[in-house]
Amino acid sequence: MTLSIYLSGEIHTDWRDQIIAGAKGLNVTFTAPVTDHAASDDCGVAILGEEPDKFWHDRKGAMVNAIRTRKGIEEADVVVVRFGDKYKQWNAAFDAGYASALGKSLIILQPPEHDHALKEVNAAALAMARTPEQVVQILRYVQDGTLPA
Amino acid sequence: MTLSIYLSGEIHTDWRDQIIAGAKGLNVTFTAPVTDHAASDDCGVAILGEEPDKFWHDRKGAMVNAIRTRKGIEEADVVVVRFGDKYKQWNAAFDAGYASALGKSLIILQPPEHDHALKEVNAAALAMARTPEQVVQILRYVQDGTLPA
Amino acid sequence: MTLSIYLSGEIHTDWRDQIIAGAKGLNVTFTAPVTDHAASDDCGVAILGEEPDKFWHDRKGAMVNAIRTRKGIEEADVVVVRFGDKYKQWNAAFDAGYASALGKSLIILQPPEHDHALKEVNAAALAMARTPEQVVQILRYVQDGTLPA
Amino acid sequence: MTLSIYLSGEIHTDWRDQIIAGAKGLNVTFTAPVTDHAASDDCGVAILGEEPDKFWHDRKGAMVNAIRTRKGIEEADVVVVRFGDKYKQWNAAFDAGYASALGKSLIILQPPEHDHALKEVNAAALAMARTPEQVVQILRYVQDGTLPA
Amino acid sequence: MTLSIYLSGEIHTDWRDQIIAGAKGLNVTFTAPVTDHAASDDCGVAILGEEPDKFWHDRKGAMVNAIRTRKGIEEADVVVVRFGDKYKQWNAAFDAGYASALGKSLIILQPPEHDHALKEVNAAALAMARTPEQVVQILRYVQDGTLPA
Amino acid sequence: MTLSIYLSGEIHTDWRDQIIAGAKGLNVTFTAPVTDHAASDDCGVAILGEEPDKFWHDRKGAMVNAIRTRKGIEEADVVVVRFGDKYKQWNAAFDAGYASALGKSLIILQPPEHDHALKEVNAAALAMARTPEQVVQILRYVQDGTLPA
Amino acid sequence: MTLSIYLSGEIHTDWRDQIIAGAKGLNVTFTAPVTDHAASDDCGVAILGEEPDKFWHDRKGAMVNAIRTRKGIEEADVVVVRFGDKYKQWNAAFDAGYASALGKSLIILQPPEHDHALKEVNAAALAMARTPEQVVQILRYVQDGTLPA
Amino acid sequence: MTLSIYLSGEIHTDWRDQIIAGAKGLNVTFTAPVTDHAASDDCGVAILGEEPDKFWHDRKGAMVNAIRTRKGIEEADVVVVRFGDKYKQWNAAFDAGYASALGKSLIILQPPEHDHALKEVNAAALAMARTPEQVVQILRYVQDGTLPA
Repeated sequence: MTLSIYLSGEIHTDWRDQIIAGAKGLNVTFTAPVTDHAASDDCGVAILGEEPDKFWHDRKGAMVNAIRTRKGIEEADVVVVRFGDKYKQWNAAFDAGYASALGKSLIILQPPEHDHALKEVNAAALAMARTPEQVVQILRYVQDGTLPA
Repeated sequence: MTLSIYLSGEIHTDWRDQIIAGAKGLNVTFTAPVTDHAASDDCGVAILGEEPDKFWHDRKGAMVNAIRTRKGIEEADVVVVRFGDKYKQWNAAFDAGYASALGKSLIILQPPEHDHALKEVNAAALAMARTPEQVVQILRYVQDGTLPA
Repeated sequence: MTLSIYLSGEIHTDWRDQIIAGAKGLNVTFTAPVTDHAASDDCGVAILGEEPDKFWHDRKGAMVNAIRTRKGIEEADVVVVRFGDKYKQWNAAFDAGYASALGKSLIILQPPEHDHALKEVNAAALAMARTPEQVVQILRYVQDGTLPA
Repeated sequence: MTLSIYLSGEIHTDWRDQIIAGAKGLNVTFTAPVTDHAASDDCGVAILGEEPDKFWHDRKGAMVNAIRTRKGIEEADVVVVRFGDKYKQWNAAFDAGYASALGKSLIILQPPEHDHALKEVNAAALAMARTPEQVVQILRYVQDGTLPA
Repeated sequence: MTLSIYLSGEIHTDWRDQIIAGAKGLNVTFTAPVTDHAASDDCGVAILGEEPDKFWHDRKGAMVNAIRTRKGIEEADVVVVRFGDKYKQWNAAFDAGYASALGKSLIILQPPEHDHALKEVNAAALAMARTPEQVVQILRYVQDGTLPA
Repeated sequence: MTLSIYLSGEIHTDWRDQIIAGAKGLNVTFTAPVTDHAASDDCGVAILGEEPDKFWHDRKGAMVNAIRTRKGIEEADVVVVRFGDKYKQWNAAFDAGYASALGKSLIILQPPEHDHALKEVNAAALAMARTPEQVVQILRYVQDGTLPA
Repeated sequence: MTLSIYLSGEIHTDWRDQIIAGAKGLNVTFTAPVTDHAASDDCGVAILGEEPDKFWHDRKGAMVNAIRTRKGIEEADVVVVRFGDKYKQWNAAFDAGYASALGKSLIILQPPEHDHALKEVNAAALAMARTPEQVVQILRYVQDGTLPA
Repeated sequence: MTLSIYLSGEIHTDWRDQIIAGAKGLNVTFTAPVTDHAASDDCGVAILGEEPDKFWHDRKGAMVNAIRTRKGIEEADVVVVRFGDKYKQWNAAFDAGYASALGKSLIILQPPEHDHALKEVNAAALAMARTPEQVVQILRYVQDGTLPA
């Protein structure tokens, strides 16, 4: 059983690297959005031409990024959505809703202080984890039935 | 052409009432989540029994509310999602993602200060409005082709 | 918001009547399998001709009943599945799985002694209720936001 | 023609091993739930933290197991569901209903004493087998047209 | 429970009239192809212009008839397909396959001499009836649980 | 059998009026895009605010119009697409492709000089008509089996 | 572009071999039903046990064969359905209808004397061929754009 | 992340070659319609026999080409549709609509003079590019996050 995992959400800590490193040896593949913040913000205008209005600047970038995001979510078996402690992170919640409507298995990775604000998101998920290591343990168990010692 | 509209998001101002009042005379129907904040938070335990752990208290409520939310979104032609100036509002963004994956026509209603944070959400929408009156004008135009004078 | 409810499962107590009576005044419609046990078992051969082998006798009946069951589940917004204290009730669990794969909102109605055996079924549901009255309270809340006093 | 088979249901006898051994040489792949009973029951709390209430203990585990179960069923061409002579086995019937709604080819493997109780489940299946060897013979015939001598 | 029934197949006997008459009083609606043989054959060229080649004459008619046939089958809960004792009737079998792939409840109405030739078609159906009266009895039972006296 | 018809394409002649008038007495309903050219072009900025760049001016309008267009096509049984003798009419061909992918019954209404350029579009349609009256005749035949005298 | 082809219908001539041989060198894969007539008729009882009633004998076989048929059709890009000059061949027409509802590209292979009887089936197809060589030429053209010399 | 790209539209310049050459080194695969104009126009009659009427000549060819076109679009992650400065190009707009209804990521490649005529098509796309090089830059960014220097 090969698992395809999409890692959505917060891009300012190394949680993706921790999961990918922890999953070494498992038969899993990972995809994710472009996590270079500046590139992600500017990709639309950098390729398709400047926009004087920031609103359309943002729109062009968000649409180009959507090509990657949709592909990643639609081909994933499991979508992990990480909520950090900064920013609005509405794109993370949007991805969670999008994945949920497609019937993907959702894992939410978030700190306790967000429990109440994320209750609808968590209720659509199959697991709520606190640490990247727990996500790895879920992937390992799902793949080969092994629990942490 | 009858339009069915789901009004998602912020529950602390009277934006839903403004839209419903403004749309009087149009052939539209509206649905929405339960907007009584306390009832919405406590519906799970009030009906199905207390939970000592706030996490499961929230989970039971969120799942009961999901019966209504899913029905409303799945039967809607247009989903309007309102982002206000307080709270995390991740359930609003989740609804937007869910509606988007189902191919619903999305209208985002939000103040300018959220433009950048909502760029991915806006990019999935067919309109970004600033006021409830603009939403009403869209509904009127979509239904009978009339533009504001 | 009109809700269509399918009442699946146990046919030896009056739980369906209790829910229907309790929901009087709500804008809900109910469907259910044929609950006359003898008619349900024999409908295939009574209409389409006797079978000497009990296996095909059962098959003919189950297929005729499936016309009604599928229609009921596929058109339902909410599928309530009741597990009683007798019999194997595999058709109830089958209906729950069928409804879950179609994305229906599931409510499981069951006594505490089945909690462990039903854990996978409950995990696919949006509510686990103990009494028909709780099911009615959920329907009322979902429809008009009213909680029990 | 490669066939992907999901082996659902009873986990206390070696029927899966018999099918896998018998199918040696065929171009088939097998998936199954985690069949270590203790690990399956406890995976949720072992990874994601203890729950004082057995109901939520079970819920956490059932949700983690669902990641594997859904993936297995959704990618299968054929879902074999085995009913044994002990326990409620509602998860097996749930899997059968889930697979049926997705249009999977179902094979039910069950002893004669369950014929009547499984009549709705059998009526949704393309074969009802009594032995693992019969399941293997079906897979061999489906793949290369060879019948047992 | 309102049932929508599509009556496909043989157009040379009054079996449709018998079913419709027999179902008087039930909450069912019926649709069917155009059963005027000459109109059905010539509708394409009669409306859209003559074709010197019989092949395209037939094609134009078959495509116009498909507008009605598809609508009827796609909106039906139950598709009854009647095989008579004359002609190739490949359109009837085509309708059965089309309905089956859409997950419709199929009832096949056919004389015993076709049993072997229709075995694949029957295997996709929920009932195989010999007489229009049996079809009526199925519809009555499915709707209100009443079996023939 | 009620038929829902979407009338897409050319907006400079009265072909829609001719079809609607001709279909008087049939059990059909019609929807269409907003056919006021100026309103259709400017609806986005008239409601949601001016854009200095014509490209985004057009985009805002096209997105608002899409709310109506998608709703009309998705709820239609039959989509009629009219190609006239002026303009690029790419939105008409886009609607035809969109309707085709959704499995709608397509009727193309076009003059002979476009036959070759529309060959792919016609090949996805169930009828190619030259006059609005032919479209009416198709609708009448599909609904009640009557051919023109 | 790899093409997957399902070869449905008549099993008494070597048309499948001709197509497979002719397609040597193309990047195509072929699947087909079991074409050993006796095995196909008896597979159900040979594996799952005798039936005294020929009707259920046939049913058991048809259901086992359906595992292969459905898999073949559902994974095909192109479904070729061959109608010969003998037998009822309703399973061929059923496969054509099934494939059509799934949106598969259909090629019908048939002699001129069946043109009228197959008009509805042909109207759902993208090509009507007279010879296996024509089918090969279509596959070659679709794959690499080469027309016969 | 492997990307599958379908290159639709204009066949008279070397834009496809430019994109394919520019994408060398990326993990992308390309499909496209047959771009030999004469072969594309005549494939139907060349394989399946002459037609005296140009309309059916065109129809036969368009249907054979549709086998390739549908396969290409349905398996694509990204559909690029190029509009040139000649011809009606309705098949390009049709492909765009078809791809849009299937939820594909659309990129429109077109010169500024078509901006207004393509506004509905652009509004369904995630990017509007002016040059093949921009398309390549989008594919590179989507795949590995690299922006042009």
